[in-house]
Amino acid sequence: MSVTFAKGFEAAGVAAGISSVEGKQDVALVVNNGPLNAAAGVFTMNRFCAAPVQWSRKAVADGELKAVILNSGGANACTGDAGYQQSEKTAQTVAFMMHVEPEEVAVCSTGLIGELLPLNKVVEGAQRAFDALNSNAQAGDDAAHAIMTTDTKPKMVSRLGSNGFRIGGMVKGSGMIAPQLATMLCVITTDAVVSAGQLQAALNAGVEMSFNRIDVDGCMSTNDTVLLLASGASGITPDPDEFNGLVADCCASLARQIIGDGEGSSHDIRITVSGATSEDAALACARAVAASNLLKCAISGNDPNWGRVVSSLGTVPADVAPYDPNDVSVTINGVCICKNGAPDHDRSEVDMTLREIDIDIDLGAGASEARVWTDDLTHEYVHINADYES
Amino acid sequence: MSVTFAKGFEAAGVAAGISSVEGKQDVALVVNNGPLNAAAGVFTMNRFCAAPVQWSRKAVADGELKAVILNSGGANACTGDAGYQQSEKTAQTVAFMMHVEPEEVAVCSTGLIGELLPLNKVVEGAQRAFDALNSNAQAGDDAAHAIMTTDTKPKMVSRLGSNGFRIGGMVKGSGMIAPQLATMLCVITTDAVVSAGQLQAALNAGVEMSFNRIDVDGCMSTNDTVLLLASGASGITPDPDEFNGLVADCCASLARQIIGDGEGSSHDIRITVSGATSEDAALACARAVAASNLLKCAISGNDPNWGRVVSSLGTVPADVAPYDPNDVSVTINGVCICKNGAPDHDRSEVDMTLREIDIDIDLGAGASEARVWTDDLTHEYVHINADYES
Repeated sequence: MSVTFAKGFEAAGVAAGISSVEGKQDVALVVNNGPLNAAAGVFTMNRFCAAPVQWSRKAVADGELKAVILNSGGANACTGDAGYQQSEKTAQTVAFMMHVEPEEVAVCSTGLIGELLPLNKVVEGAQRAFDALNSNAQAGDDAAHAIMTTDTKPKMVSRLGSNGFRIGGMVKGSGMIAPQLATMLCVITTDAVVSAGQLQAALNAGVEMSFNRIDVDGCMSTNDTVLLLASGASGITPDPDEFNGLVADCCASLARQIIGDGEGSSHDIRITVSGATSEDAALACARAVAASNLLKCAISGNDPNWGRVVSSLGTVPADVAPYDPNDVSVTINGVCICKNGAPDHDRSEVDMTLREIDIDIDLGAGASEARVWTDDLTHEYVHINADYES
Repeated sequence: MSVTFAKGFEAAGVAAGISSVEGKQDVALVVNNGPLNAAAGVFTMNRFCAAPVQWSRKAVADGELKAVILNSGGANACTGDAGYQQSEKTAQTVAFMMHVEPEEVAVCSTGLIGELLPLNKVVEGAQRAFDALNSNAQAGDDAAHAIMTTDTKPKMVSRLGSNGFRIGGMVKGSGMIAPQLATMLCVITTDAVVSAGQLQAALNAGVEMSFNRIDVDGCMSTNDTVLLLASGASGITPDPDEFNGLVADCCASLARQIIGDGEGSSHDIRITVSGATSEDAALACARAVAASNLLKCAISGNDPNWGRVVSSLGTVPADVAPYDPNDVSVTINGVCICKNGAPDHDRSEVDMTLREIDIDIDLGAGASEARVWTDDLTHEYVHINADYES
């Protein structure tokens, strides 16, 4: 179940020959049949944002969307005016079939940067996706499959509100994952009765604590798009706190699934920094540790190398995160191996055979904490990214 | 030829059993026989700086050093008071043999973080190195070998001034190489007659344009140390500009050798950003590109993936580096493959079989430029760093 879990939505995923993988589903369509068509979006901060991001940012600016058309197999990024026209034409194709305005259709693309899309295939794929639209679970699954690139599995979520409203979603993302945002396309749908303003607030809060807290490889994409659409088809007006909480929960689940499928990864690494003077300080430290190639390699080799934890911590300027190196302790999978800046338990006591590795860092400087997720760095990551284009 | 190229210096490198590699030289000693003993140093900015860095920073603070004792096989970092006492004891051992004060002896260590050194072996190694001191070329070579860790070759430099003074040096560094500083130990010697103040100024300028412009893996070490010692044994007072230029040239050569021996690397990547509004802006852009794991993987796969160049550029905030994405061009090995933010020549025209890859980025925003060097990211890098400890 993904975007069709919520009532009022139809979806489809079809193979249009855009992807270089023969027969792979590569065009997804999500349609909101209402009665509401409220929408909110969050987009990449990258200054080289892709044509579809430029299009969709404008499309969602009025808080309304009736459909989202997505393709894998090409990012349509850094493609100039011709690329923008491709996104516009794609939206027009869907709008024509739905008898709506192009500005009510968001466009998302993912794949190689720097090449135009095979537009005829995208248009034909959109037409076939429109014909295949369905509100059943299989249609949601198909859409989630169609947006995958180096993902090894589809990533979906569904949550049921206490009085019956529903939220469902899908995301793709595996590499080029860095905070603000992680690299991905994400569509979340709900049948709750909520305004565009409430959607945007819920999405902003949810994204901040999820997609903005994961880092596979420190590389920010040009195409990141997260959309939240409400149909109102349940007729239920949810408690705002519950609604926000469930949206955040959906974002967190999808973000966690991205980490679980990080390119070539063999460990998921949860980094928690506590004892900081502020949440920002804790976050800066956690991100510095999550960005360390050396640590990520050590974890892939099952080595709880805390020296690479503290050497990364030590790169955070003192004015950003005040702490005394002699007060810092590091615990990996429950074993304290660095206490007050010096060795404690022997590193051999740490069980590194688990998929999930917990690194807990106590700065000993305050009461705030923050958490980020990352993956280890493996031979397979290099293989995937050395051979992606060729 | 390395540190013994300049007159007035003796050196040695011996195997003391500190390294886990049987029979590897792991203790180096460099002695300045004067008549001058002027010295300058630059150290890591990491807040978790190692015990030997804490010791040596104090030792060189008065602008005088008579010897430097270095070991590979252990970094003595994050080892608390006991680690500091080990550095002190090591300096005392050398000072006792030389009949000088411990504060005239700098100490450098490199290797695994978070473990104390086998002090008896260090002390015994220092004594044997003292007995083996020699001013010939072989002694300089031995010292350069003894500081190697994952380096596959020793890194040495020698330069002759126009009126006969000499500068020689050695460096180790292969991984954990990031700006400010690169991860390494470096000792440069000269027989010119120069003051400590002039040495420090020459070293600061030289380091800024060399070791601070290379990035193997974005990881800042706890042990980085660059020392410049003058014996005055040539009796020659050099032209200050020539002296500064030659010191910078030595730093540049050693930094280039580090990149040429970056852990597991198959390509050396030179990134030049021009057309920037300021040198700082150009440098920020160059560093962002150099830090991209995705680009570094692409290069290792012989893929001139300019999408990964611009997506990295796009992460630099506009207030740091003002430019318009539509004005940016990227040339790789002389082939312009992105012109004004859109595809230009086909990427297949780029010859990627060369060891050295030139990435030239024109921001189209001004007249300033900056250059950094990095390596590609290979299977072998992961192998080295996943298996370093275990």
